[in-house]
Amino acid sequence: MNLKQLSALLELSQTTVSRALNGYPEVSEQTRRRVLETAQRYGYKPNSNARKLATGRAGSIGYVLPVGRNVDLDPHFVEFLSGLGEHALSREVDLSLTPASYERESEAYRRIAASRSVDGVYLSAMRSDEQRIGLLQELGIPFLAHGRALKPVDGYACVDIDNEAAFHDATRLLLQLGHQRLAFINGDTDYSFAVHRLDGVRRAMTACGLAVGSLQHHSAAMNEENGYRIASALFHNADPATRPTGVLSASMFTTLGIVRALNQLGLKMPDDVSVITHDDVFPFLKPESFSVPLTTTRSSIRAAGARICERLVDIISGVETEPVQEIWPVELIVRASSGPAPTERKVVRRAAEAAQ
Amino acid sequence: MNLKQLSALLELSQTTVSRALNGYPEVSEQTRRRVLETAQRYGYKPNSNARKLATGRAGSIGYVLPVGRNVDLDPHFVEFLSGLGEHALSREVDLSLTPASYERESEAYRRIAASRSVDGVYLSAMRSDEQRIGLLQELGIPFLAHGRALKPVDGYACVDIDNEAAFHDATRLLLQLGHQRLAFINGDTDYSFAVHRLDGVRRAMTACGLAVGSLQHHSAAMNEENGYRIASALFHNADPATRPTGVLSASMFTTLGIVRALNQLGLKMPDDVSVITHDDVFPFLKPESFSVPLTTTRSSIRAAGARICERLVDIISGVETEPVQEIWPVELIVRASSGPAPTERKVVRRAAEAAQ
Repeated sequence: MNLKQLSALLELSQTTVSRALNGYPEVSEQTRRRVLETAQRYGYKPNSNARKLATGRAGSIGYVLPVGRNVDLDPHFVEFLSGLGEHALSREVDLSLTPASYERESEAYRRIAASRSVDGVYLSAMRSDEQRIGLLQELGIPFLAHGRALKPVDGYACVDIDNEAAFHDATRLLLQLGHQRLAFINGDTDYSFAVHRLDGVRRAMTACGLAVGSLQHHSAAMNEENGYRIASALFHNADPATRPTGVLSASMFTTLGIVRALNQLGLKMPDDVSVITHDDVFPFLKPESFSVPLTTTRSSIRAAGARICERLVDIISGVETEPVQEIWPVELIVRASSGPAPTERKVVRRAAEAAQ
Repeated sequence: MNLKQLSALLELSQTTVSRALNGYPEVSEQTRRRVLETAQRYGYKPNSNARKLATGRAGSIGYVLPVGRNVDLDPHFVEFLSGLGEHALSREVDLSLTPASYERESEAYRRIAASRSVDGVYLSAMRSDEQRIGLLQELGIPFLAHGRALKPVDGYACVDIDNEAAFHDATRLLLQLGHQRLAFINGDTDYSFAVHRLDGVRRAMTACGLAVGSLQHHSAAMNEENGYRIASALFHNADPATRPTGVLSASMFTTLGIVRALNQLGLKMPDDVSVITHDDVFPFLKPESFSVPLTTTRSSIRAAGARICERLVDIISGVETEPVQEIWPVELIVRASSGPAPTERKVVRRAAEAAQ
């Protein structure tokens, strides 16, 4: 049934019916009720034609929301959602969140497929060994990944940033500045972005003739506490002649903790330690807002959210037919937290100062 | 149509049909497709009986997601969503987000009502003068508010924290510690929580015989930048004998900025300035993680998210019939950022130290 048929049935103008369905206030409550009841009885979906063009039947895209005791949704998700929501608004699609524990995740996708409550889904927090891609292909749900899996390598659509190149470039800068002893406080390497970043760090070290075994690499959830804990362990009572002089950090929150540890130990950026951090561009926490402004690898996660929505709608509506792997370059922004590696003499002098 | 009827129609056992609908792998893809197609053709909804018990028809609760140029979803939302998602999982309900700009918000609610895509909605960021309550009552959508409006006063269900008492208690503590010159870096007073907090501060001042006009009150979005900007304006080149000695802060992010400003100006917590902050209990940013651990008013926004989901499902399913206004008490946790007001002599000494 289309709008014309519904209007004829109701003996109302198409304009009035359309207004009633879209909730405009000029239509009386009584008329609106009558229109809605008739529309429902005859299976007419408001905006169904416009929506079918834009997306599929449901007018909704889906996301399986990870919940459970050990899962903390983090602030990255809010920024991503802001971008996605903005684009969803322009395409008139809703976002449906289906909560699921990690163990019962595949069941959630199967239920989504069975109920046809959404026209497509996006995936995030891509794992190194990613089971969801095969599952969604089997279920025939249109999907798009935010990030990439290590396995399978291709055959699916994604939007990702070039994490490998970002951390390669950051590491190369530290090496060019004379740093030889590096530490990397990475995210959880169960996720592929963290593996890509580690690859980038190692590639830069190898290119410079540095043994990758000398890297002090730590993998942990990206939050203030872990940044503090790991940085404290790296620098507390460490010999100034052997401790790291260059630190790479996975996130702004990790770096909040690193900075707290350095402050407590009386170590200065960049005189004692250079720090380079990945920045997803949070409006609530900016690299310029640290007492020593942070050198960062920068890419807006909000822009990624908008792009994910745009491409997923294109995939659902058949505008995009081949699975494109879209990889965004990342900028390296130099601020005050990075500088030349301390010289031998400077290390001794700074140690003496700190001991006073 | 129920599961028995559907199974009879398909000439399959109820177990097989149920498994097919729930996506268990032991059912062949061919059978699964046949079950799903038949279920859809005859309007059978997977889990519809179980879901109807728990909620309504859609198995989904809704939220109008604010988007637009001047809207930053902030990290509070992630924590709230974590709690809500955890409870939604246990009740097997989805969360449907409908993006809308502020100007077209009422249209979004009307569209939700018309499409019957959700069984109920929750409201958040309650405004002082709140139009949405009347609109939802008119539309007949079950709803629950996170927070309270100033108008209307009652007649709707909500979960809120006692912002008035929280900031009353925090202010009273500062007054008991001898602080006479107070500043409050508040959230945006377009929202009722910020008005309630200001009421609390003023009540404590009045009870202590202090003129409320002496309060330096600033209202702004809660982020690092505003905290820094406002604290800098309060303390830069300010006369130590007249500048505030006690600062109340609306959020952890605001306080990140306050602390940055104080550090830059060489002012110490609590010797020069006592700071008390509201803490929504973020796992990614803790009051203990500041170089001077923060005294806070504390209430878990994650717990509020879980409770909102629980009560909204109860309202939808008719378990809760009267509109209850549930107000949670807030704890006041004393840490190192608050202390006695500096004495006259100490002010002079500290100023001399700072000038060196």
